Amino acid sequence: MPATATSTQYDQLLQSAKDATLFGSSLGILHWDQEVMMPKKGLAYRADQIALMARMYHKMVTDPNIEDQLCACEEDSELMHDPTSASASNVRELRHAYDRNTKLPTELVEEEAVLSSKGQEAWKEARKNNDFSEFQPWLEKIVTLLQRKAECYGWAEGGEPWDALAEDYEPGCTAAGVSEVFTPLRIRLQSFLDELMGSDTKPSNAFNEIALPIDQQKAFVQAIASQIGFDFDAGRLDESTHPFCGGTHCNDVRMTTRFHENNVNDAIGSTMHESGHGIYEQGLLYEHVGTPMGSAVSLGIHESQSRMWENQVGRSEAFWKWCYPTMEEYFGDATASLTFDDVYGGANIVRPDFIRVEADEATYNMHIMIRFELERMMMKGDLAVADLPDAWNARYQEYLGIDVPSDTKGCLQDVHWSMTSMGYFPTYTLGNLYCAQFFETAIEEIPDMYEQFARGEFGALKGWLNENIHCHGKRYRAAELCEVVTGKALSSDPLMRHLENKLRPLYGLA
Amino acid sequence: MPATATSTQYDQLLQSAKDATLFGSSLGILHWDQEVMMPKKGLAYRADQIALMARMYHKMVTDPNIEDQLCACEEDSELMHDPTSASASNVRELRHAYDRNTKLPTELVEEEAVLSSKGQEAWKEARKNNDFSEFQPWLEKIVTLLQRKAECYGWAEGGEPWDALAEDYEPGCTAAGVSEVFTPLRIRLQSFLDELMGSDTKPSNAFNEIALPIDQQKAFVQAIASQIGFDFDAGRLDESTHPFCGGTHCNDVRMTTRFHENNVNDAIGSTMHESGHGIYEQGLLYEHVGTPMGSAVSLGIHESQSRMWENQVGRSEAFWKWCYPTMEEYFGDATASLTFDDVYGGANIVRPDFIRVEADEATYNMHIMIRFELERMMMKGDLAVADLPDAWNARYQEYLGIDVPSDTKGCLQDVHWSMTSMGYFPTYTLGNLYCAQFFETAIEEIPDMYEQFARGEFGALKGWLNENIHCHGKRYRAAELCEVVTGKALSSDPLMRHLENKLRPLYGLA
Repeated sequence: MPATATSTQYDQLLQSAKDATLFGSSLGILHWDQEVMMPKKGLAYRADQIALMARMYHKMVTDPNIEDQLCACEEDSELMHDPTSASASNVRELRHAYDRNTKLPTELVEEEAVLSSKGQEAWKEARKNNDFSEFQPWLEKIVTLLQRKAECYGWAEGGEPWDALAEDYEPGCTAAGVSEVFTPLRIRLQSFLDELMGSDTKPSNAFNEIALPIDQQKAFVQAIASQIGFDFDAGRLDESTHPFCGGTHCNDVRMTTRFHENNVNDAIGSTMHESGHGIYEQGLLYEHVGTPMGSAVSLGIHESQSRMWENQVGRSEAFWKWCYPTMEEYFGDATASLTFDDVYGGANIVRPDFIRVEADEATYNMHIMIRFELERMMMKGDLAVADLPDAWNARYQEYLGIDVPSDTKGCLQDVHWSMTSMGYFPTYTLGNLYCAQFFETAIEEIPDMYEQFARGEFGALKGWLNENIHCHGKRYRAAELCEVVTGKALSSDPLMRHLENKLRPLYGLA
Repeated sequence: MPATATSTQYDQLLQSAKDATLFGSSLGILHWDQEVMMPKKGLAYRADQIALMARMYHKMVTDPNIEDQLCACEEDSELMHDPTSASASNVRELRHAYDRNTKLPTELVEEEAVLSSKGQEAWKEARKNNDFSEFQPWLEKIVTLLQRKAECYGWAEGGEPWDALAEDYEPGCTAAGVSEVFTPLRIRLQSFLDELMGSDTKPSNAFNEIALPIDQQKAFVQAIASQIGFDFDAGRLDESTHPFCGGTHCNDVRMTTRFHENNVNDAIGSTMHESGHGIYEQGLLYEHVGTPMGSAVSLGIHESQSRMWENQVGRSEAFWKWCYPTMEEYFGDATASLTFDDVYGGANIVRPDFIRVEADEATYNMHIMIRFELERMMMKGDLAVADLPDAWNARYQEYLGIDVPSDTKGCLQDVHWSMTSMGYFPTYTLGNLYCAQFFETAIEEIPDMYEQFARGEFGALKGWLNENIHCHGKRYRAAELCEVVTGKALSSDPLMRHLENKLRPLYGLA
């Protein structure tokens, strides 16, 4: 591209995006440090530090010069003519971000920050006391504020307020679209779960009943993460109460896991999960760092990567064929009594229960659908906050056949709403759906993938993900990426096939 | 103070200082993270990140509004009438910092940043190749630039260029003043070292000849740091190649140490040293965080704290009376053969040698005096860079009686000059001098201090330091603090008394 006036504007636009990311990524390190390293007395100052830097960051990404640069680029046909080119993708996504960043009045942003912080405090107390009425007035304030926020953002014709919020997490996603995929999934899942629960055959639970020293667990999951392709020269694995994946950029990815002496399965699952996020982040191209072309598509696509390594790989028979024999090296005699069936089966126990974060691969999506339906109704004004516990409990009875014993184990279990996040939950199940659909395509293109897993070889899958998903950054939106990679629109079929093919034999079903 | 126009200006001045520190302290975490945690591929991006944030920080601390606020405050007699009040101290030190920050033209700052980085690269190569001639042209550039820098800062009448640079590290310090203290110290040290080296009695070196597992060393030094009063709820101890103490503020202090299997003494010494820095930082008052009243006096005073815990405490007989019996708990049989004399003696071996960072407590100061004399002459133009190796080697022969075998073990051993730091070295010896003088006063006021150490009680000394030194922040300049705390001007007598009283018996001298 010759150095025209527009190309200069484009360069400036990219430079300002890179600078903002460079600056903003310090916040990534501060957050990671706070969760993983910071001594406890450091909290108050750290909160002030993050608040100051978040204000400075917001100023950078709402600089009015960006508007001028965007307008100049958008009028340039050479830059924009191929919508999947790097330049057109960058301009499109920077426009999207800039409009989002500038659409909210400052008062509302500050009001939300305060409400999010106070809401979480109130939620913690209410949850501890198992008393929804303590949280109810805060959730009412939150819903009202989020409705105002949705109005500021606006939504497409035929859409609804929920769409405006989901756009932050899953651009292009609408409640109607989600519903279209979730409804058939729910119906099939429900009948499949009935079948599983009705079977007399169950996998062995012995794997989940042994205690293993945490130091040994640490060495074990570190080796697993390395084996599947997480690059420890470009990232770390540490420990935190709630596992997450953060960091600054593709060459410095910080992920965490957690350990319980009597639940190594949890450490393996969360390490595989976070490694999936980490491998995605490491697969973004350094040459595009700080621009949309070097950033992940959406939370749903991110989750597709974590779920793939956690579930499609980490709970597969082939994975355990490699992993099971290595356990002795880390745990010695402690795991000697476990058979292959104990371990593979133990990683695949299905049991309808109350708590989302402890749910298995099959029931997990039911938890999400319930939250999606309820937050959608609250945003629309179709469900009063006061009626939330009843609506919650009724759905758990209907979808999972269980009676919620308390609000703490019910509608008070998740932090999300208290921190003003609505429109977020479905990205977890969208991730599962994208994941299953991507994986079916991958295995079509790499037919011996499971044999490779059984030999401890994960490079072909990682390479496929690098090439088909990671390297594109935000070139495609999620739905489009799904079409490009799999040739089809998102459907619940691949996920159901995955669950049925794996779980039927384990539960003795034909 | 009533809310006058000036008090508002003062509040704004403090607020801008607090904001700048809050922001700048993120750089502290980024530096710490880079040394201690960052995966190796993260380096390039981290360098860009730090450079961007350093530019932003510089803009904050050179904001012209600060000049107006300072002028308004300086004219207010109520704010300024008591020169040791918090307000007058803050205004005085913020003026000092602002003037320093604004006196250098931006081109010179950028030129220095580039030269510092390239100079270090050239120094590393030259050191590796033991070839001073590779580094010589760079050091010539550096001296020329530092002479220009000194001109920009200026110096007091009767002073010299070196003074202008030292002001960054030790405000108020001059080459003439340093020389006045260093000269008698050198003469006494030289004759004392002759005596020690001439003695047939030497302490046992057995302590320095055993190998101990690094994990055990870690637990041991962690326990020592905690015992002497470093608060692990307000700080951390990690590992890095070059030990340092950093962090963000008094409630989040990050220090590091290093481990060699066959040198536990090094880990103990560097942990005690950094804990001294750490305890100083933790002793600054949170209510003054981000202002001069909440900041350390100078590098020399900082070093007085690290050296006190490292040498006056950590190499004392009393300390080892407590520490020696605890070793079995950490090292089991591995240290069982060591006697008390092995351990106490082994921490106090004196041996003239080439390398400053490996030097013992007695010869260390000779290394510093040599560097001070040479950098002072180079800054004045009295020593050509080309003549540095000869001048260096001649002094090692004269002061320490040893023949420097190579430039790598001679004038190429330290990084400081290559990174454009001149005026820095003397703060190490000033630290030793302040330390010895403070400690003599402390022991006058707490006569049973050594008995306390022998029982593992270090709280009285820590409390004394908190009360007499730490809590004042920058209320006093270094020389003034010395007078206030000890009633006397800085002298080399206390340090010589300390060394002689301890080392004479160990070397069998009367």
